[in-house]
Amino acid sequence: MELCPSIVTLTTDFGTSDGYVSAMKGIMLGINPHLNLIDVSHDVQPFDIVGAAFLLKQSLRHFPENTVHLVVVDPGVGSIRQAIAIQHEGHYYVGPDNGLFTLLLETDTPEQIVKLIKTDSAPISMTFHGRDLFAPVAAHLASGLPFEQCGYRLTHLYPLEWQPPKCNANEIIGHVVHVDHFGNCITNISRDLIEQYSDQKTVLFSMGNTVIQGIHSTYSDVPEGEMLMLYGSTNNLLEIAICLGNASTHLDLQRSSPIHLQLSP
Amino acid sequence: MELCPSIVTLTTDFGTSDGYVSAMKGIMLGINPHLNLIDVSHDVQPFDIVGAAFLLKQSLRHFPENTVHLVVVDPGVGSIRQAIAIQHEGHYYVGPDNGLFTLLLETDTPEQIVKLIKTDSAPISMTFHGRDLFAPVAAHLASGLPFEQCGYRLTHLYPLEWQPPKCNANEIIGHVVHVDHFGNCITNISRDLIEQYSDQKTVLFSMGNTVIQGIHSTYSDVPEGEMLMLYGSTNNLLEIAICLGNASTHLDLQRSSPIHLQLSP
Amino acid sequence: MELCPSIVTLTTDFGTSDGYVSAMKGIMLGINPHLNLIDVSHDVQPFDIVGAAFLLKQSLRHFPENTVHLVVVDPGVGSIRQAIAIQHEGHYYVGPDNGLFTLLLETDTPEQIVKLIKTDSAPISMTFHGRDLFAPVAAHLASGLPFEQCGYRLTHLYPLEWQPPKCNANEIIGHVVHVDHFGNCITNISRDLIEQYSDQKTVLFSMGNTVIQGIHSTYSDVPEGEMLMLYGSTNNLLEIAICLGNASTHLDLQRSSPIHLQLSP
Repeated sequence: MELCPSIVTLTTDFGTSDGYVSAMKGIMLGINPHLNLIDVSHDVQPFDIVGAAFLLKQSLRHFPENTVHLVVVDPGVGSIRQAIAIQHEGHYYVGPDNGLFTLLLETDTPEQIVKLIKTDSAPISMTFHGRDLFAPVAAHLASGLPFEQCGYRLTHLYPLEWQPPKCNANEIIGHVVHVDHFGNCITNISRDLIEQYSDQKTVLFSMGNTVIQGIHSTYSDVPEGEMLMLYGSTNNLLEIAICLGNASTHLDLQRSSPIHLQLSP
Repeated sequence: MELCPSIVTLTTDFGTSDGYVSAMKGIMLGINPHLNLIDVSHDVQPFDIVGAAFLLKQSLRHFPENTVHLVVVDPGVGSIRQAIAIQHEGHYYVGPDNGLFTLLLETDTPEQIVKLIKTDSAPISMTFHGRDLFAPVAAHLASGLPFEQCGYRLTHLYPLEWQPPKCNANEIIGHVVHVDHFGNCITNISRDLIEQYSDQKTVLFSMGNTVIQGIHSTYSDVPEGEMLMLYGSTNNLLEIAICLGNASTHLDLQRSSPIHLQLSP
Repeated sequence: MELCPSIVTLTTDFGTSDGYVSAMKGIMLGINPHLNLIDVSHDVQPFDIVGAAFLLKQSLRHFPENTVHLVVVDPGVGSIRQAIAIQHEGHYYVGPDNGLFTLLLETDTPEQIVKLIKTDSAPISMTFHGRDLFAPVAAHLASGLPFEQCGYRLTHLYPLEWQPPKCNANEIIGHVVHVDHFGNCITNISRDLIEQYSDQKTVLFSMGNTVIQGIHSTYSDVPEGEMLMLYGSTNNLLEIAICLGNASTHLDLQRSSPIHLQLSP
């Protein structure tokens, strides 16, 4: 008997006002009532694969080995996109093959990928593979089904369309990849990249009349209401923030807004 | 000793910014810390019994046998409405007797109904039966309390006020029963009804300048941005949708909006 | 082996559209996969310590003994505010020492307080103590770590800034401390206080053309749409409400709005 609760995380763009998420939970608990189901988020914007990919990178690596991650952001449901499961560095991932996982995994050739086959005889709806295909596979994987039995071997993941920053000796040009709940604007510009290019120079962010100079360690390094740049707690990406304020609203920065950094001697 | 985690689902109109839901969870875990508590939704519109009834139908049937479903959408709290528990087809339901359950159960005479009596000596507030009456009963049921001991036998449920579609050889007139998170407009018109009346005829939805002809299998059967009709994954009800778009916003359809289908030879 | 699931509740101002909450959950489940993680709310307004303090008072006391309550509403993260754990009346609390807990505990000198020290060797980010410090301590406490080993002894909590009502023989002047999901306006005026001062007098709430007289037992004591006062299910605080309506919208009352009660012979 398996006493260790097997963990399945759930990430979707389903929202929480419909019964879609709990339909998936019901199906999984029918397969194994001992599962420990953990919601990552159901507030991904509808059909937003890039936003989901970033969210997964923020949180999934913190879960223990053998966790199964069910991710259903699936604008291509019913089309020719593949339904897959991935095994990589001790974690399992189940969802559509549309680029959701490559940012998190930092590769499009993880250790093992399979194209899913149905694990039981119930029919599959054309519009809700989360309930009819992905959730059952996730529950069976979390209950000990050998990964190889989930489907047919694939070799590559469909890549995420994700634009890297442009850099030269005088500037780095990136963009906002995520605005968090506090209005902090997280960019695609990493600490590594800045350290590689800045070489003792001062980093300046300017936009209209706004200038932020240098990079701080934490929000409260500056007085309340003042803007700052810092490296976020997720993967050391540069953030534009306001101490106890909302940088997104104040600076009118949204996802995809361009971010120009000047490197001045 | 009971090792199998007993599952209790929760559905309310309490929202998630107050402490009301977690007060109920605390009470239940005090009765049995092994309960596996699963949120269905707390985003039912305040006092919206019909909306809750539809949500329950979307998801509860997917849970395994012996699940206890706690449902608190209770505009009549403190009034003469009855507090009940239901046992039907291997599931248990606890909540107010105001029509919440008859759509899901497809009957107003389920196998067993009881009018609740208090299971312990703590006082009951006049405004929060969810915490003081329904949650304790749900926790005790999920922990093995015999159903008969929950209260006094009743024979009938209070019915849901729910309007069926009107049909003739030329048209079907129904309405929108639910707009989901993606803006898909789910109607009260079932596949069975359409197949019964259409008899090889083409089904047309028209509204202003908009005409949708025929019924597709899945959203991606049409190009991005195009409208379509399809049978949803929940109970084969007709949906008006837009591939990767929001039909509710685009067509200005809300819950209760009338839906006219023409049956043309 | 510990079979009893140890309960950890989570309350934050992180929202549910980022990966911050699930990062904390992942860390805790890595320490102990048997934890039963219960969300209280993640919808506290950003940086709103008073709102969080009230929410905690609404719900935490309902949980069983030995529950660990992780609370991260932390506008001072990275500053000199202390990171603490509290043991009081059989419950444990982990979070920043900024006043979050004194309303709930009804004291600023609970049984035991410690200033946290790190429980493992991983580095602490400057901006996310929830993940890097508070969550690990909560998980270890819920898994049997002796309280004394969490840190250095402190004697006093930082108090909540919380304004009590002003009273005389003719009136009580308080304010709205919380507007709930239904628009009920919960005040800082307790039943005890009213009974102490009213002394057989009638309690009147007036505001513009609105007058509410006397205090009812439950919402449905008055017809639909009518205003009333009642003592809420949380700690017997006076609420201004509308039967099946939204008092906050109708009366334009928000948090901090003043509430004048007249005591008329």
